[in-house]
Amino acid sequence: MSRYWSRVVQGLKPYVPGEQPKLPDLVKLNTNENPYGPSPLAIHALRGEIGDALRLYPDPNADRLKQAIAASFGAQCIAPRQVFVGNGSDEVLAHVFLALLKHERPVLFPDITYSFYPVYCGLYGIDYTAVPLNEKFEIRTDDYLVRNGGIIFPNPNAPTGCFLPLSEVERLLAGNADSVVVIDEAYVDFGGESAIAFVARYPNLLIVRTLSKSHSLAGLRVGFAIGQADLIEALERVKNSFNSYPLGRLAIAGAAAAIEDQAHFERTRRAVIASREALVRDLAALGFEVLPSTANFVFARHPDRDGGELAAALRQRGIIVRHFQQARIKQFLRISVGNDAQCRALVGALREILR
Amino acid sequence: MSRYWSRVVQGLKPYVPGEQPKLPDLVKLNTNENPYGPSPLAIHALRGEIGDALRLYPDPNADRLKQAIAASFGAQCIAPRQVFVGNGSDEVLAHVFLALLKHERPVLFPDITYSFYPVYCGLYGIDYTAVPLNEKFEIRTDDYLVRNGGIIFPNPNAPTGCFLPLSEVERLLAGNADSVVVIDEAYVDFGGESAIAFVARYPNLLIVRTLSKSHSLAGLRVGFAIGQADLIEALERVKNSFNSYPLGRLAIAGAAAAIEDQAHFERTRRAVIASREALVRDLAALGFEVLPSTANFVFARHPDRDGGELAAALRQRGIIVRHFQQARIKQFLRISVGNDAQCRALVGALREILR
Repeated sequence: MSRYWSRVVQGLKPYVPGEQPKLPDLVKLNTNENPYGPSPLAIHALRGEIGDALRLYPDPNADRLKQAIAASFGAQCIAPRQVFVGNGSDEVLAHVFLALLKHERPVLFPDITYSFYPVYCGLYGIDYTAVPLNEKFEIRTDDYLVRNGGIIFPNPNAPTGCFLPLSEVERLLAGNADSVVVIDEAYVDFGGESAIAFVARYPNLLIVRTLSKSHSLAGLRVGFAIGQADLIEALERVKNSFNSYPLGRLAIAGAAAAIEDQAHFERTRRAVIASREALVRDLAALGFEVLPSTANFVFARHPDRDGGELAAALRQRGIIVRHFQQARIKQFLRISVGNDAQCRALVGALREILR
Repeated sequence: MSRYWSRVVQGLKPYVPGEQPKLPDLVKLNTNENPYGPSPLAIHALRGEIGDALRLYPDPNADRLKQAIAASFGAQCIAPRQVFVGNGSDEVLAHVFLALLKHERPVLFPDITYSFYPVYCGLYGIDYTAVPLNEKFEIRTDDYLVRNGGIIFPNPNAPTGCFLPLSEVERLLAGNADSVVVIDEAYVDFGGESAIAFVARYPNLLIVRTLSKSHSLAGLRVGFAIGQADLIEALERVKNSFNSYPLGRLAIAGAAAAIEDQAHFERTRRAVIASREALVRDLAALGFEVLPSTANFVFARHPDRDGGELAAALRQRGIIVRHFQQARIKQFLRISVGNDAQCRALVGALREILR
């Protein structure tokens, strides 16, 4: 604490990201990175962008990237002006909270969800209500059909991996015409179904995406949002009051090429889905209860063993997974889906620990 | 305007950055980019970073870069925990306003200065007072020796290029023990003198820097701040409540290598200074009044010709410079120092226009 700090800073409870250890040779299954590398076309585009032109500012509007994103939705007819881009979906979400979720009434989100949401509320002085998931860790749509200042949740949810069917999403959109409903689709490409088709019909829908998961570019920092143009304009206004150039030349070029490489995207997401299904079977065989996941991670607990102890025992064996201290989920491990060798190492270590 | 916008968004007046035209072959002297490319060591480091590891998140603390920055100040003994890094100095400044300049009393900055400052105040609901520069466009220290919520100015100032001597900076620091004094040293490497030596003595000093100008990396988006550890901690708290990973893997690696390449830095900044001196002489010979500049741009007006008309006439000849509509400086052009060919093209075009 310091007398120079603003009152805002004094009250902050910052987000704690999953560890990024500097040790090599760890089996790193704690931050939901993709086990496969990024698109070769993205790599090629990045190489082509490195040179003297880095002395110049990037396009502040990142038009090249917005066009690539809009085009990738094909038949959904998304226009570039319905696309907002930012420095990772965390930055996009930060702007969303300030631009579209800061109202008189509290924002609603699940009690078990991305733990950055309450942090954004703290940063911007936004009231919120954490709405309990049901006993199966599912969102109950009816709980969100009350007056509110906005709604946000990941679909599939994190860290549970559970997916809210689109019929329920639509009920939620239709029942909240006066507030913005933000669907954080960070993990949707691993088996969920996007709400993108609702953008044309629901002016209150904003979809947020990241290239950190299904596009294997966590190290590049690119996220985006899709919605009707007036929602996007609100985000642009905040962005242009914060940082004119959130995406550098490399981020714009690499992200656009990655989005355009549909073949690599399909191949790697299918591989991750297949590995997840195998992992779920293996964990079940070891006695774990695994929540139904449509993400690139699974959320699992063992009836006889403490979650924290299991995480510590895995760590001793060079495997890191994510464990949350939060009351309802203390017994769970969130395990990112690795490649086959990583999954084998995990299952082997768990077998040993449980013996 | 939309019913979904927060009150904050409704009141925003976003910053308007200098144009980033997509036409090639323009002589682009409007956004103070460096005419020389970035360090070859930075290019090499960027190439080395492109690969499968981009699937992984970067180090959220960017320790490698903080260490390089701290080491670059050599005898000043700056520790890595006295360094904050961000996605361009614009992001760093945004966090500075929220973390250290949002208090009961108004922030003070010059009436003619970086026009993003009042925009940040609008974003975060911060009161400010724009303090008039004197008739020679200089900061009068005495004007800042009043109770305030913080002080910020670029040194050298932008868009004037004028430098406030360090003796005056120290008087300002000593006279404002209760508030944070932010010195935005974006342009200091082109002939000014850094206030870095004051960091050890003045707990209220924060220095902000960018790699966009003297390190030729505007396209990469990296800026930083230096100050005593409690000021840096305030910035880290805001950063960790906004975006855990503001710098990607490429930004961290490229910026660290650029900072370490002192030889390239010295060579290019000296070349820019030499070109500026020649440009100042040439403009004076054409009848321009040129403010004394220690930046990589000059601020000049012609006694007989309107600033806006001159900018338009230059543009017709494929040369873009920056012209501001603000009352006191409407007759001025802000001209970035280009390479020799660009400076010749500019002077030749002006000679023709003034004929």
